[in-house]
Amino acid sequence: MKFSPLFWPIQLKGNIIYILDETKLPQKLIYIKAKNYLDACRAIKEMKTRAVGQVLLVMYTFILSKRQNKNLALVAQAINATRPTLSFKFLTEMVLGLEKSGAPLEKSILGFLEMLKGKRIEQAQTMAKLLKDRDVILTHCNISGLLPLVAQFAKKGGKKISFYATETRPYLQGSRLTAWELQRAGIPVTIITDNMVAYLLSLGKVTKIIVGADHLTLNGDIANKIGTYQIAVVAKYFKIPFYVICPPASKLKSGSEIRIEIRPDDELKIYQGIHLAPKNVKAYYPAFDVTPHKLITKHIYLGV
Amino acid sequence: MKFSPLFWPIQLKGNIIYILDETKLPQKLIYIKAKNYLDACRAIKEMKTRAVGQVLLVMYTFILSKRQNKNLALVAQAINATRPTLSFKFLTEMVLGLEKSGAPLEKSILGFLEMLKGKRIEQAQTMAKLLKDRDVILTHCNISGLLPLVAQFAKKGGKKISFYATETRPYLQGSRLTAWELQRAGIPVTIITDNMVAYLLSLGKVTKIIVGADHLTLNGDIANKIGTYQIAVVAKYFKIPFYVICPPASKLKSGSEIRIEIRPDDELKIYQGIHLAPKNVKAYYPAFDVTPHKLITKHIYLGV
Repeated sequence: MKFSPLFWPIQLKGNIIYILDETKLPQKLIYIKAKNYLDACRAIKEMKTRAVGQVLLVMYTFILSKRQNKNLALVAQAINATRPTLSFKFLTEMVLGLEKSGAPLEKSILGFLEMLKGKRIEQAQTMAKLLKDRDVILTHCNISGLLPLVAQFAKKGGKKISFYATETRPYLQGSRLTAWELQRAGIPVTIITDNMVAYLLSLGKVTKIIVGADHLTLNGDIANKIGTYQIAVVAKYFKIPFYVICPPASKLKSGSEIRIEIRPDDELKIYQGIHLAPKNVKAYYPAFDVTPHKLITKHIYLGV
Repeated sequence: MKFSPLFWPIQLKGNIIYILDETKLPQKLIYIKAKNYLDACRAIKEMKTRAVGQVLLVMYTFILSKRQNKNLALVAQAINATRPTLSFKFLTEMVLGLEKSGAPLEKSILGFLEMLKGKRIEQAQTMAKLLKDRDVILTHCNISGLLPLVAQFAKKGGKKISFYATETRPYLQGSRLTAWELQRAGIPVTIITDNMVAYLLSLGKVTKIIVGADHLTLNGDIANKIGTYQIAVVAKYFKIPFYVICPPASKLKSGSEIRIEIRPDDELKIYQGIHLAPKNVKAYYPAFDVTPHKLITKHIYLGV
C-alpha cells in the first residue's frame, strides 16, 4: 500500500511536531513546526490540519508536553477550547486517565496511535469490500488519506473505481486535498462544484457516496464538513447509497447536541487575498452540519 | 421604484451598444462597447452579460445590424450559435419574422423591449404579493435586478423581507451580483456557500425560495444556473415553497430536450488567475441544470 501524505500528516521528531500545512496544498507540500502545546492549539484553530491530523496533533502534543513537564490538565483544557464541533474530549480524557493510572504515558500514546493506524487501514479495507467493479464514487471534503487506500484495496480485489470530488467551499478541501491525493496516486478523479451534485446524480453518473465524519454520536448521527447533509438529502432523493467512514463515537446522544462552529465571514468572502463578494456584505459560515442517521446507508466504524 | 443596474444592463446609444460587464462586478461597475454583431456574440460567449442582459443585447444587436445593413439571417445564426442552453431562437425568429412582414424593425423591437420592461415589473409585483411580512428568501445565481424590485414592492405593501444568497460557484453571480444589488438597495442579505442550503433550511431559517430561469419548456420544466436543481430537491425535502421567475416558454416539450452547455474546466479550477485545484486534474462544468416542474411550487410567468 502507498500512503497519502494526508493519511499521517503529523510527525514527532525529537521535540518538534511537524504539521503538514493543508492550507498550502496543492501548491506546496510543506510542514510547519510546533514546539509546544500553544503552537499546536494555534495550528488547530487555523485549520492547518484537520480530522485525523488533529487527533495525531493532540496526541503528539501530550507526549511533548509531558516531556516539557507541563500540567497536562491545562494542556487538555487548551485543546478542548480550540474548536467547538470537534470532540477532542475523547482523547484528552483518555490521556488524563492514563496519566492518573500511572501508566507509561508516552509508550501508551504511541501504542494507541499504532492501533489507530491499523484500524484505519482496516476501515479502508472494509469500505473496499462494499464496492463493485466500475463504481463511481462521489465524495465531499477530505477523508485524510483514506480514499487512496480504499482504491488500492479495491484494485487488489480486481475492482476499478473512480471518483468525483466536490470542491468543498469555502476551504476547497475537495479540490486541494482529495483530488490532489487521488491524482498523485494515479486514481481517476473529477472535480465538481458543490452545487452540481443533484445534476450529476440525476444523470446516473454516480453509484455510491462516501464521506468522512468529524463527530459520531451514540445514535449514529454525524457531524462532518458543511455540505455533507445536503449531499445526504440529495442521495436519498436519487436513491444512491450513502456511506460514512466514522471516528469513534462521542458520548453525545444525538446530533442535536453537537455545537456547530461558526467561523469568520471573511473565510467565505476572501480567498487568498481576492475578494469574492462586496466588502461589507454579511456572510454566514457554519463549518459543519449534522447528517441524521436515517440518511446514512451504512456506517463504517473505526473498530477501537 | 429604484432599478438595479442589472435590471437593464444593456444600452444602445448612437451606434454603440454598452454592455454592463458583469464579470467585473462588484469591484468595478464598467460598460464595454459593442460596435457590431460580432462584438455582441463575443460578449455573450464570454458571459459578460447573462439572462435578461442577453435578451437586450440580442435585440439591440438586431437594431444596430439593421442600421449597418447586415444580413439579419446571418446575424441570427451567429447569435443562436453562442450558447447551447439558451433559447435565443424565440427572439431571432421573432425578429426575422418582423423583417419578413415588412414592419418597421427598429420601432417594433423598441416597442417589444418597452413591453418587456413593463411585464418584468409586473412579475416583481406578482412575486411580492405572494410574500408575507418577515419572509426570509433564499435565492441562487442572479435574477437580473428583479429581487430589489420584489423587495421594494413588498415594502410598499408593508412587508419587510430579507435574503440569503448562495454564492453560486463557479462564477459567483450570487455574491458578486445578487448580494451586491440587494446591499446597494439597502435590503438585508447574507451570503452562504452553495453547500449550506440544506443546513440552513434544517434550521428553519428560510421561508421561501425564489430563483430565475434561463429556459422554460412547455411542460413547466426549467433550465437555470447549475445548482438550481439541487436546491429544488432540498426544498422539497424540507417542504419550503420553491418559486421560479420565468422567461417566455420555448417550443421544447420538456426539460429532457434542453441541451446543457458544458463549459471549460479552467473556469472552475481557476479564479482570477488563482489556481483552486491541482493543475492537471479533470473537472466537469455543466453551466445549467434542469429542474423538473414537479419540484416547482409556482411559476411566475412573464405575461408576454
